[in-house]
Amino acid sequence: MIKLNADLGESFGHYRLGMDEEIMPLIDMANIACGFHAGDPIIMDKTVLLAKNSGVEIGAHPGYPDLLGFGRRSMKCSAMEIENYIIYQAGALDAFCKKHKTDIKYIKPHGALYNDMMGDAEVFRAVLNAAAGLNLPVMILSSSKNEEYEKIAHEFGVKLIYEVFADRNYTDEGFLVPRTRENAVISDKNEILERVLMFKEGYILSENKKVLNLKVDTICVHGDNEKALEIIKAVREVL
Amino acid sequence: MIKLNADLGESFGHYRLGMDEEIMPLIDMANIACGFHAGDPIIMDKTVLLAKNSGVEIGAHPGYPDLLGFGRRSMKCSAMEIENYIIYQAGALDAFCKKHKTDIKYIKPHGALYNDMMGDAEVFRAVLNAAAGLNLPVMILSSSKNEEYEKIAHEFGVKLIYEVFADRNYTDEGFLVPRTRENAVISDKNEILERVLMFKEGYILSENKKVLNLKVDTICVHGDNEKALEIIKAVREVL
Amino acid sequence: MIKLNADLGESFGHYRLGMDEEIMPLIDMANIACGFHAGDPIIMDKTVLLAKNSGVEIGAHPGYPDLLGFGRRSMKCSAMEIENYIIYQAGALDAFCKKHKTDIKYIKPHGALYNDMMGDAEVFRAVLNAAAGLNLPVMILSSSKNEEYEKIAHEFGVKLIYEVFADRNYTDEGFLVPRTRENAVISDKNEILERVLMFKEGYILSENKKVLNLKVDTICVHGDNEKALEIIKAVREVL
Amino acid sequence: MIKLNADLGESFGHYRLGMDEEIMPLIDMANIACGFHAGDPIIMDKTVLLAKNSGVEIGAHPGYPDLLGFGRRSMKCSAMEIENYIIYQAGALDAFCKKHKTDIKYIKPHGALYNDMMGDAEVFRAVLNAAAGLNLPVMILSSSKNEEYEKIAHEFGVKLIYEVFADRNYTDEGFLVPRTRENAVISDKNEILERVLMFKEGYILSENKKVLNLKVDTICVHGDNEKALEIIKAVREVL
Repeated sequence: MIKLNADLGESFGHYRLGMDEEIMPLIDMANIACGFHAGDPIIMDKTVLLAKNSGVEIGAHPGYPDLLGFGRRSMKCSAMEIENYIIYQAGALDAFCKKHKTDIKYIKPHGALYNDMMGDAEVFRAVLNAAAGLNLPVMILSSSKNEEYEKIAHEFGVKLIYEVFADRNYTDEGFLVPRTRENAVISDKNEILERVLMFKEGYILSENKKVLNLKVDTICVHGDNEKALEIIKAVREVL
Repeated sequence: MIKLNADLGESFGHYRLGMDEEIMPLIDMANIACGFHAGDPIIMDKTVLLAKNSGVEIGAHPGYPDLLGFGRRSMKCSAMEIENYIIYQAGALDAFCKKHKTDIKYIKPHGALYNDMMGDAEVFRAVLNAAAGLNLPVMILSSSKNEEYEKIAHEFGVKLIYEVFADRNYTDEGFLVPRTRENAVISDKNEILERVLMFKEGYILSENKKVLNLKVDTICVHGDNEKALEIIKAVREVL
Repeated sequence: MIKLNADLGESFGHYRLGMDEEIMPLIDMANIACGFHAGDPIIMDKTVLLAKNSGVEIGAHPGYPDLLGFGRRSMKCSAMEIENYIIYQAGALDAFCKKHKTDIKYIKPHGALYNDMMGDAEVFRAVLNAAAGLNLPVMILSSSKNEEYEKIAHEFGVKLIYEVFADRNYTDEGFLVPRTRENAVISDKNEILERVLMFKEGYILSENKKVLNLKVDTICVHGDNEKALEIIKAVREVL
Repeated sequence: MIKLNADLGESFGHYRLGMDEEIMPLIDMANIACGFHAGDPIIMDKTVLLAKNSGVEIGAHPGYPDLLGFGRRSMKCSAMEIENYIIYQAGALDAFCKKHKTDIKYIKPHGALYNDMMGDAEVFRAVLNAAAGLNLPVMILSSSKNEEYEKIAHEFGVKLIYEVFADRNYTDEGFLVPRTRENAVISDKNEILERVLMFKEGYILSENKKVLNLKVDTICVHGDNEKALEIIKAVREVL
């Protein structure tokens, strides 16, 4: 069964972001920010409780230590720094899980750290090192390189969770069309739903209608506005 | 048996503070900073490993979110904020303990948070709430008010650890002489050692030579410089 | 002529706060956050330009270094710290003013720093010290204690700007009714407008209908939502 | 006349770094940290005063917003972010200069921002944009590419100040030997002094003894320890 995952708990102090309360009941996996790029102890406490009460799996969503850039700017950190930043953030989130008698089920790096993990094997290994120490799976982007990542993860004894995007086009080679290109993002609801159905059947059509067979454990959905919320509801029904 | 405790892991990024490697082998309990007022993921990782290798008990040393003020400035935080700040910090430290197959043994609030805890029952209750959720004892300042604190801690099911200072004078009422007064701090090594011996016998003489019977689980020692290190060594021998 | 002032530029990084573009054309003085409790270099740049293009006076709105608490939590800072924190923040804002060929006209401390300034003469003196060095007036809360503040400000050669609140009740003694009391805030639009008219005549009726003669240079307005915006527009017309 | 420049004011809060008081009287130009990667309002205040009292030129030393990494990690910031980060930091420093009746004479980006400026024309242009707005020269690394940089700076109407390193080897092509190579750094005092003499004559010998004619306005010296201090004193005498 394909699950829906979304980034939540991204408010900070006096600042509100996202529609966490509306989205939580519609998803299966909540990637919760841990205070480095977004989130704070109060927000984490509330979000963990909200996830637990909605029966949603909790994932740590660690990012670079860059609140000002919302974790979306790549930072040249060493492997040791990345590993320990993830351990710190996952540990902080875990304490709120303990408080609410639940636990972290996986790690999904956020923003630039996610991109760097997918593009740089050394960063990926640093993430795996952290995950291995915490005995947690890592969510990565499903692509034509899955076997390559699987092999590395196996070295660390870490299980991978594969996510896809129903609102993003894929190249013929099986990667996301970069955001710099015009057709990168799909915003039409019906088109998105068609793509969810394809993923359900185990494939997706590339931008040039080539059939790509991609592993799909979960589809990433966004929840910033009312329209996004509607799409999640529709995807939910289709699944 | 009276144990020695000290604040460690107070470096941050490029900045070095304290003589952790020299002090660790001389103490029994290490209060490790958790990244809010001092410490960072790299430092925490190293300090936890150092403590473990020296057979030293690890305590979480959470502070106010004030790196610029080193956690020494009181901040008017709500009880909910204090509770969650402590949970966050203790959780982060705990992840490094797990990585190194050890665990946190207690919580000792740092600096202004420690002072606020001793002076404001609402802050103390917030600390106890956090400690209860994490199932950890709290280290507090031993004074004439021990029974009062014990009673409150009992409500939360939290065990207290009593610490004293061998280099601080006590008032006749059984509290620390405030630092604003001239005789607050004792710097003479022999005098400090005499006071350690008194604590070993279960009492201390106040500034006016009144006998005070104070519970003593642990003596707090400092390790900023060579002289401090010598004093710790001497105290160690006396105990 | 009474001016309207409002707090603006309170967004941070990815986080949006306030309706700056709608409010700016309606006010006379913009208190712009300087990056310690809110605001960042990008936001400051935009907000200064927006103020300049709207012909609005720019005020530095420095706060405690507490982004997590939005500068609303009192911090026990020394006078030297407060003075230098204000100088730093005002200087940073001034650079954006220079870039856009305009300048800072006054300083209004934010949140807890404002409250501490009004309640603690040492904090007030620290603010005045900073203002004197930058040769800028300081905006303070108009109350029965105006003469007292005037006298202190005179020592430093600093001019004061008196602000009042049309949506807050005043005690018979001429101070704001504390927010902990039920009648602290006035939310009825017509009542607010009546009070603006009183201020225009140079007085305000206290909660028990006593006439208070308060100096009024400016009225502070808020702009968080649509309703607030309507009130500003109405106040604008009345003035 | 060749001047000596050094990075100063790099302490932060409770953390001390560098030997500012010993070094200040020995140099001509002080690159003062501005609070993003190091430094804070108290430190900046003290360092500006120290520079002024020693008759040393003050330079703003802005860095990436990365205190944890001491500004030594490259961050993928946009040109607009870099420009505004520099304006913010230079403005903050300028306020302390005003307080002490002096002013900023130049801008020298710090650490990773300096390296990024030298390696990426877009970053260099962002720095120049900031400098042009503040009407200040920029200090850059003297190399075989000086003319190229000069040309770009000319577009912005910004004057360049060329710095060299007496303790670093140069490639035959006229660039610094990367730190990853064994012969990158020269630590022998006599060798350093010989190189200072060459710079005084307007050239330097590359690692393979090729004569490189490099513009030299200033030599960068370091002041972290006693040995560094001795070298500065010796260089001072030679110049």
